[in-house]
Amino acid sequence: MQIYGDYQSGNCYKVAWVLHYLNQPHQWIDVDILAGEAQQPAFTALNANAKIPLLVLEDGRFLSESNAIINYLARGSALLPSDPYRYAKVLQWQFFEQYSHEPYIATARFINRYLGLPDERRAEYASKQVGGHRALAVMEQQLQSTRYLVGDQLTLADISLYAYSHVADEGGFDLADYPQLRRWLEDIARQPNHLPMATG
Amino acid sequence: MQIYGDYQSGNCYKVAWVLHYLNQPHQWIDVDILAGEAQQPAFTALNANAKIPLLVLEDGRFLSESNAIINYLARGSALLPSDPYRYAKVLQWQFFEQYSHEPYIATARFINRYLGLPDERRAEYASKQVGGHRALAVMEQQLQSTRYLVGDQLTLADISLYAYSHVADEGGFDLADYPQLRRWLEDIARQPNHLPMATG
Repeated sequence: MQIYGDYQSGNCYKVAWVLHYLNQPHQWIDVDILAGEAQQPAFTALNANAKIPLLVLEDGRFLSESNAIINYLARGSALLPSDPYRYAKVLQWQFFEQYSHEPYIATARFINRYLGLPDERRAEYASKQVGGHRALAVMEQQLQSTRYLVGDQLTLADISLYAYSHVADEGGFDLADYPQLRRWLEDIARQPNHLPMATG
Repeated sequence: MQIYGDYQSGNCYKVAWVLHYLNQPHQWIDVDILAGEAQQPAFTALNANAKIPLLVLEDGRFLSESNAIINYLARGSALLPSDPYRYAKVLQWQFFEQYSHEPYIATARFINRYLGLPDERRAEYASKQVGGHRALAVMEQQLQSTRYLVGDQLTLADISLYAYSHVADEGGFDLADYPQLRRWLEDIARQPNHLPMATG
């Protein structure tokens, strides 16, 4: 099993973490996003959507989209509830992450941390703050009533949302107004099988 | 079982179609997006993320995110493969839809059809064309080798991507260069259990 990824990407970090958590042997193949390697023909032949992470199975079949990959890897494990409603709740949070969280928080982090907040992207950066705080507020509200996003057990919902939430400050997001979210971040970081994000 | 939704929304259409396909009894409660009803306290008390569709079960539990809802409704049906890899491929296409397709094609359609392409959003509208065509090209490439997005059977991947692809012209997307995608749209529309989108 091979993973094409970049350890500085939160989407790739989700996959590295689940592989670590489940102790699954694999080969990690670095793809440098900033150098544009995901847009090179050698990579787009594998994934026409030109995005990492990408999972390649032993038989050559492949799978893209970070949340689809971790759902595949974690099937049958404690990270995915067997109850249909709770499983659907994990998916709900993962779709929320990709539509309402990542495009604001991860994009703001990318513009700020990796591009150095250039003048021509300052307006876009500022526009990301509103949506990012809206997403954090939705999480805060959930975490006021449950320890993790889907009840009292860690699931893939937490891993998917932790990936960029725990580095939200790099996108200019102050978590001071989200006490339950900060408590949740600490809870997750203390898990015995936790894998810290490689910070390059 | 209750659904809060708006028939003119592609995301809500996915849910209506799956309920029709599976012949599941339900009550549909109209929420007028353009009138801002999803932002009203009566609705945000149910879904803090202020988005439709929303599924409310008999016992009062609820589920948001269109793709999470249809995965819940279609569990155990022919619309979801039982093979883990093929199931993960359905998820892959659904996450692709929410991240790489819907923000371009559905947003361009919204700006054009529902807002009447106002001057102050023309630049945003134009910027959506590139990403939208990139998404359509990824689908076209897949549909050159398989009848449906995940092999030779209709799955939720097709329903999720059909919702906004079949009205892409309303967002200014000409499908002339995507012959396999047009063939796929026609195949789906001919399915015996197909539900056409309510056009208001």
